[in-house]
Amino acid sequence: MTTTRAEAIPEVGTLEHSDALELLGLVAQLEHVAFARLAADAALAPTIEQRLELSRFAAGAVERRDRVLARITEIGGDPVAAVRQYDDVLDDFDARTQPGSWWERLLKAYVGYGVADDFCRLAAEGLDAGSRAVVLEVLDDASHAELAVAELDAAGSADGVLTARLALWGRRLVGEALGVVQRLLVQRPALVRLVSVGAAGAPDAAPPNAPAKLFGELTAQHTRRMSRLGLTA
Amino acid sequence: MTTTRAEAIPEVGTLEHSDALELLGLVAQLEHVAFARLAADAALAPTIEQRLELSRFAAGAVERRDRVLARITEIGGDPVAAVRQYDDVLDDFDARTQPGSWWERLLKAYVGYGVADDFCRLAAEGLDAGSRAVVLEVLDDASHAELAVAELDAAGSADGVLTARLALWGRRLVGEALGVVQRLLVQRPALVRLVSVGAAGAPDAAPPNAPAKLFGELTAQHTRRMSRLGLTA
Repeated sequence: MTTTRAEAIPEVGTLEHSDALELLGLVAQLEHVAFARLAADAALAPTIEQRLELSRFAAGAVERRDRVLARITEIGGDPVAAVRQYDDVLDDFDARTQPGSWWERLLKAYVGYGVADDFCRLAAEGLDAGSRAVVLEVLDDASHAELAVAELDAAGSADGVLTARLALWGRRLVGEALGVVQRLLVQRPALVRLVSVGAAGAPDAAPPNAPAKLFGELTAQHTRRMSRLGLTA
Repeated sequence: MTTTRAEAIPEVGTLEHSDALELLGLVAQLEHVAFARLAADAALAPTIEQRLELSRFAAGAVERRDRVLARITEIGGDPVAAVRQYDDVLDDFDARTQPGSWWERLLKAYVGYGVADDFCRLAAEGLDAGSRAVVLEVLDDASHAELAVAELDAAGSADGVLTARLALWGRRLVGEALGVVQRLLVQRPALVRLVSVGAAGAPDAAPPNAPAKLFGELTAQHTRRMSRLGLTA
């Protein structure tokens, strides 16, 4: 259902849509951050082929972000306001996890933002069908993750010291990333509601332990991701 | 005419296509540099609206670059090699023209890269019809220039000191940009040939003063650009 912006903010089902706007704002912000990171990666990448490829991923993140922003407008929200509320959502995470090498940078993209994506995917289960479809479609684009996996795999399999270091780095990344999720849940009751709805299938049946289940799931996904690289989680 | 890469490099009309590959490589490199600069602008822009808009321009530059790379492949060239030869084409220019403010940054994009675009547009006149169409289409996308004009105009018209400073900055930018063109013409006979063909309509009739005419044209375009901003060239 499309509503014009003027009538929308007071009119739409307040709880349902304001929760959706919070998650959509977060997803849009994460895609914008991905754009900025991929553009910086493109500037730093060792070869021209990688620079060309990473700039394409950066452009893809812009396109995905804009799909989410279009959905925000569709349900009567203000895209700029929705993004702005998460302006510094990864500042702490980035300050604590400065990569020391190209490989650490790649693993950070794969593992760190992988946790954020998984979180949004699980929370999206609590969204209306239209918003959920947009979020899942946007988060499904794993082309950059594939690049990271291929490169890390090729580099790591030949070098035991690198593998051990990256396993350690992965553990730090996931710890910090889960910290980000924890802070988000404390600050944003809307996200807790979405996760609970998603876990239960209906808001009233929300299990009291939905967040605990969430962290179990995020950790399991992380372990799966690390083992794809042959790294111990 | 499309040729496969394996047969193309030695087979295609050597002079015509190797000249085209040099210009296409330069245009692709300039678009890639534009992507990097716009992405950096997006990270620095004062408002979220500007950050969103600049990231879209960055994505647009990637798309334009890839259109040029596709043309390089079409005429039998190696896109990565074509871009690589211009890897540091703007390094000197950038080192000499570090902007000191957001306004200087905007003017640099509009004026500095404007000269580069004009140069490529004039040299494109010497290309085969297919390559020329791609280059002119790519260079025709002036959406980012429009943004720069609108913002600079709004800022400058209210502030006499800023206007005077920016006029001075514009003169430095154009001087350095013309220096880049001059070095390119010394190092790249292919580009001189394309400019001469463009100026004359046919290679044999190339006027001996084609480069002089070129600099006259570039300066005239610069003056027109500055006066759009109400700045003295």
